[in-house]
Amino acid sequence: MLIVMKPGAAEQDVAAVVKVIEQLGYRPHIMPGATRTAIGITGNQSAVDPARFENMAGVAEAIRVSKPYKLITLDLRPDKTVVKVGDATIGGDELAIIGGPCAIESREQAFAVAETVSRSGARFFRGGAFKPRSSPYEFPGLGEEGLKIMAEVREQFGLKIVTEALDVVGVELVEQYGDIIQIGARNMQNFSLLRRAGKSKLPVLLKRGMAATLDEWLLAAEYVMSEGNYQVILCERGVRTFALHTRNTLDLAAVPAVRRISHLPVVIDASHAAGKNYMVAPLARAGVAAGADGILVEVHNDPKTALCDAAQALTLDEYDEMLRELRAIREVIAH
Amino acid sequence: MLIVMKPGAAEQDVAAVVKVIEQLGYRPHIMPGATRTAIGITGNQSAVDPARFENMAGVAEAIRVSKPYKLITLDLRPDKTVVKVGDATIGGDELAIIGGPCAIESREQAFAVAETVSRSGARFFRGGAFKPRSSPYEFPGLGEEGLKIMAEVREQFGLKIVTEALDVVGVELVEQYGDIIQIGARNMQNFSLLRRAGKSKLPVLLKRGMAATLDEWLLAAEYVMSEGNYQVILCERGVRTFALHTRNTLDLAAVPAVRRISHLPVVIDASHAAGKNYMVAPLARAGVAAGADGILVEVHNDPKTALCDAAQALTLDEYDEMLRELRAIREVIAH
Amino acid sequence: MLIVMKPGAAEQDVAAVVKVIEQLGYRPHIMPGATRTAIGITGNQSAVDPARFENMAGVAEAIRVSKPYKLITLDLRPDKTVVKVGDATIGGDELAIIGGPCAIESREQAFAVAETVSRSGARFFRGGAFKPRSSPYEFPGLGEEGLKIMAEVREQFGLKIVTEALDVVGVELVEQYGDIIQIGARNMQNFSLLRRAGKSKLPVLLKRGMAATLDEWLLAAEYVMSEGNYQVILCERGVRTFALHTRNTLDLAAVPAVRRISHLPVVIDASHAAGKNYMVAPLARAGVAAGADGILVEVHNDPKTALCDAAQALTLDEYDEMLRELRAIREVIAH
Amino acid sequence: MLIVMKPGAAEQDVAAVVKVIEQLGYRPHIMPGATRTAIGITGNQSAVDPARFENMAGVAEAIRVSKPYKLITLDLRPDKTVVKVGDATIGGDELAIIGGPCAIESREQAFAVAETVSRSGARFFRGGAFKPRSSPYEFPGLGEEGLKIMAEVREQFGLKIVTEALDVVGVELVEQYGDIIQIGARNMQNFSLLRRAGKSKLPVLLKRGMAATLDEWLLAAEYVMSEGNYQVILCERGVRTFALHTRNTLDLAAVPAVRRISHLPVVIDASHAAGKNYMVAPLARAGVAAGADGILVEVHNDPKTALCDAAQALTLDEYDEMLRELRAIREVIAH
Repeated sequence: MLIVMKPGAAEQDVAAVVKVIEQLGYRPHIMPGATRTAIGITGNQSAVDPARFENMAGVAEAIRVSKPYKLITLDLRPDKTVVKVGDATIGGDELAIIGGPCAIESREQAFAVAETVSRSGARFFRGGAFKPRSSPYEFPGLGEEGLKIMAEVREQFGLKIVTEALDVVGVELVEQYGDIIQIGARNMQNFSLLRRAGKSKLPVLLKRGMAATLDEWLLAAEYVMSEGNYQVILCERGVRTFALHTRNTLDLAAVPAVRRISHLPVVIDASHAAGKNYMVAPLARAGVAAGADGILVEVHNDPKTALCDAAQALTLDEYDEMLRELRAIREVIAH
Repeated sequence: MLIVMKPGAAEQDVAAVVKVIEQLGYRPHIMPGATRTAIGITGNQSAVDPARFENMAGVAEAIRVSKPYKLITLDLRPDKTVVKVGDATIGGDELAIIGGPCAIESREQAFAVAETVSRSGARFFRGGAFKPRSSPYEFPGLGEEGLKIMAEVREQFGLKIVTEALDVVGVELVEQYGDIIQIGARNMQNFSLLRRAGKSKLPVLLKRGMAATLDEWLLAAEYVMSEGNYQVILCERGVRTFALHTRNTLDLAAVPAVRRISHLPVVIDASHAAGKNYMVAPLARAGVAAGADGILVEVHNDPKTALCDAAQALTLDEYDEMLRELRAIREVIAH
Repeated sequence: MLIVMKPGAAEQDVAAVVKVIEQLGYRPHIMPGATRTAIGITGNQSAVDPARFENMAGVAEAIRVSKPYKLITLDLRPDKTVVKVGDATIGGDELAIIGGPCAIESREQAFAVAETVSRSGARFFRGGAFKPRSSPYEFPGLGEEGLKIMAEVREQFGLKIVTEALDVVGVELVEQYGDIIQIGARNMQNFSLLRRAGKSKLPVLLKRGMAATLDEWLLAAEYVMSEGNYQVILCERGVRTFALHTRNTLDLAAVPAVRRISHLPVVIDASHAAGKNYMVAPLARAGVAAGADGILVEVHNDPKTALCDAAQALTLDEYDEMLRELRAIREVIAH
Repeated sequence: MLIVMKPGAAEQDVAAVVKVIEQLGYRPHIMPGATRTAIGITGNQSAVDPARFENMAGVAEAIRVSKPYKLITLDLRPDKTVVKVGDATIGGDELAIIGGPCAIESREQAFAVAETVSRSGARFFRGGAFKPRSSPYEFPGLGEEGLKIMAEVREQFGLKIVTEALDVVGVELVEQYGDIIQIGARNMQNFSLLRRAGKSKLPVLLKRGMAATLDEWLLAAEYVMSEGNYQVILCERGVRTFALHTRNTLDLAAVPAVRRISHLPVVIDASHAAGKNYMVAPLARAGVAAGADGILVEVHNDPKTALCDAAQALTLDEYDEMLRELRAIREVIAH
């Protein structure tokens, strides 16, 4: 923490700040400048609350210096985390492809899509059984029935199941039927849910909130990890901005930014960012080119009849073509 | 829904769209224009999914016309909702003041603040027992112990207790000790929590999410109401923008905007929007001047030692002075 | 400037940073901490470029401490600026009302509106002669003809004329016919225009850019002042956010925030923020309640036929009623 | 335009709207629905002003259907525009690389960078002679002297010169010394400048404004084209959001979105979006993968001493390595 005094701050103002620092058990470092004095603080184990100083006489600003997270950092763990689900990995050498429909609608639909996903060489199948819908009057997913269908998909095709839990009960169900617990953007700061997922043995795919800063997203991961579950995958899916030509604005700078700070793998949800079918492949390619460890993508055997987010689902053919491009781009940046 | 065709769309493209509309059981209205044809859809009970049309040949755009909410609308209920808690009201003639500390820290602190709040003529006491904190390493509130202290405050001062529930278990505890269930900005789209609150007998104070559009916020209220609980109070607390001089950007246009659509009362959380002590009174005054039904404000007997959001809490004196201004402004706009 | 080193930074990394600081002629202040070292810089006259340090070995961050503006600050001039135009003022005791149509459309329209504005006791008349329009196919204003009509309005009613200049030629024309040069949101960082306005003898009303931070806005004022023109009025008119229920999101926290840093007066453009007639009065009231020195408002004798921004103009009656409220609120906060 | 009536709108309200439509010379299309009536408008040559209808009795909403631009559209010109500068192109088969320093600082610096840029096979050299700086106290560029140095670079290396004009005088100077007129983000809606550039014989590289919607950006291009200059290159350089880990949030969805509507080429400014050296290559790769026609990138022979935006400039080696990747990715998506 750095306390910056106002230009005209009196000596006793500086002394008062120093005293508070010492009372808190920290060490003050006075730096007198030409126009104003600054006071550095060291010796604190956890974050110092700026509010202790901001309203004191003569204080202009209190600036945080150290970051509030630990477990997610490269300082703590210099090697990148590779999340393992059986023989499949996210964060390792292979580009992880997580394909499937927005919502599981029926056994037929799930199997039709899963066959393409499996044939493409992807290792992960995504599908929603519990869907967070803005309106209470929209299709909420098939619930446990949907999870059972996905468990069959796993049985049949050997795909690993990635599916969203909306609450504590949902986590238990995913633990029963799935392989990776997805936490959605709307729940990124649902701390009860994060803590419960942190007690699970399954990896957690944590989507970035619609208006989450990088720090808030990493701290949400820290919540999961602080409960003992270190298998966290970060998922950038676009943030909300004034721009109206996409559903969300995909923030690909988050990929190198996370990489600089954290050992956790990062994947891109190209479909939710785009919101429109024709943008999905360009954004997925961009994500891989930016260095993402994997791509989530919505595929549907018959997008026109999809019960959820139909506009953004790829057809099976579009999906196949896109995958070829993604792997070739991955090849380029791996060398 | 309005389907806008591309300038060069073929007649059979138009015919195909018309056919889908009819298959869905709706009624198409073809409007040929100078350069392009548009097709209106009527006869639908619920929202038509634009995705059914957007990828069809010749279609340029599918535009939603009707709104997805019902219960919150003035169409359904032309008279404003007045939420009643015993003899206190929100949404009626009186300006509702909901004052108290960010977090309940001790019996002493709660009682010191409550005395001022009570003496000022406010009818509602706010205080956090379960605090949503961005970091797992910050003070999470006293939990049930905090709720018990607030129940004592109610006993002693006759103030109504407004306090946040973070999850289903939290709702049960608030039902036991409090008077109004607060749902925080981070949980505005925690649909399991909304549904549970919708089954409660207590009123629900629903904060707007950090990046929630007006429609999403109103739909979150619709979730609560669709479970049978019509006692919903909307709370604007600022949205996230690029601006760095406030914690959040208070969107006061939301007050007249909600008023135009909905019968639900709207209150302003001046403290969370401001994030800084010196901005609270100006923003609270602005909220009342914009027509809000009430103000949430953080007060602390000793802000410098507060364990949570110290920078934004008013002292007891500042609070008193502000209240005088708020009531005078309320007087001006009531006439 | 504060240079924060990484946890594992070597001693020679610290030494290298110190050396660069000394080479630049500044004074380094080394503060070793438990986990990382920070180095304060003092002795610099102007801002230090963080980039000199950010890419050096062992450096985690370079944090700016001092602000880049001087002339706009209370440090430089503790008394509030009162802009004087003849016997009218902005920033003094009186609430400044700047009313008029979006665009001057004809002598008849201008005079009809001016009569109401004048009768209401307002001292300033606003009207666009050169309109910045997003599309080249929209009404661009009457040009010099519009300015001549406004000069007649001044003659007839004694109102002071506030009108926008889009370029250097425009500034010359406003100097010829008007009283205050308005610089629009789109031109807030048109530095050639700012410099030219800084050489004018007329006061400058500087609107905040659609995505301008507080610092950028204040620096734009600094541009004008650095050329010698100290008569600057800041105008908050809403910023662009994801919210769709208003044209712009009015950021009223900017009023107390500017007040804390600067001696310049601040006014609110309620009409451009709202974009809708029914929101104008609530937002104008909120602006005055937040402490603004004045209000810009669009009034039209016949809004339905207005050639520009018709949806947001008040009728003459609505305007009169609003003014009564604004003055009463001003009264409340002045005491 | 589509006028949506309120549920309870009276027949005479509908009749009144129909009458206004007919008075304006357009054709109304009444569509009665189960709960509300909508009225389509056709026959209009230019955009209908929604404000004519929004305040009429019984009207709920007026929704724009057709877009306000013409010249930029694929409707007008189905083939993609290829901008030619001598034998170099932007928008054709070749990936356009526009490299160079942020600001021209000296002949030595410019030549050192130009040599690398030239050797890399790039055809365009960028460099600022007139720099838009937020503060009046920062380095504003060398002015005409800088342009002369760039003219020498062109002479020596055969590179085409891309450089910014801040005002009308600047356009004349770029016409004298340069090859492509850059219009910066801050000037995207400086309509006097756009009109002047529209009268130039040089191509115009038009950066997207910090908070510009896709439509506003395309309309700014329409301004240039409406004056007769059809050689316009769009440049996405990131938009302003709440995210703090980058200088701007690069909106790569703009690439496919522009592609769907317009024949104009789109390039990406990876350096200004990133703001940090280590993000430039990932974002540039992402831009090419998303389908951009070219990349602007800041390179400096000695970034640590750069007078402008030092933190984001690549070293000559980093630049070379990045180019290899960009070309390989371009190869992937071209097939």
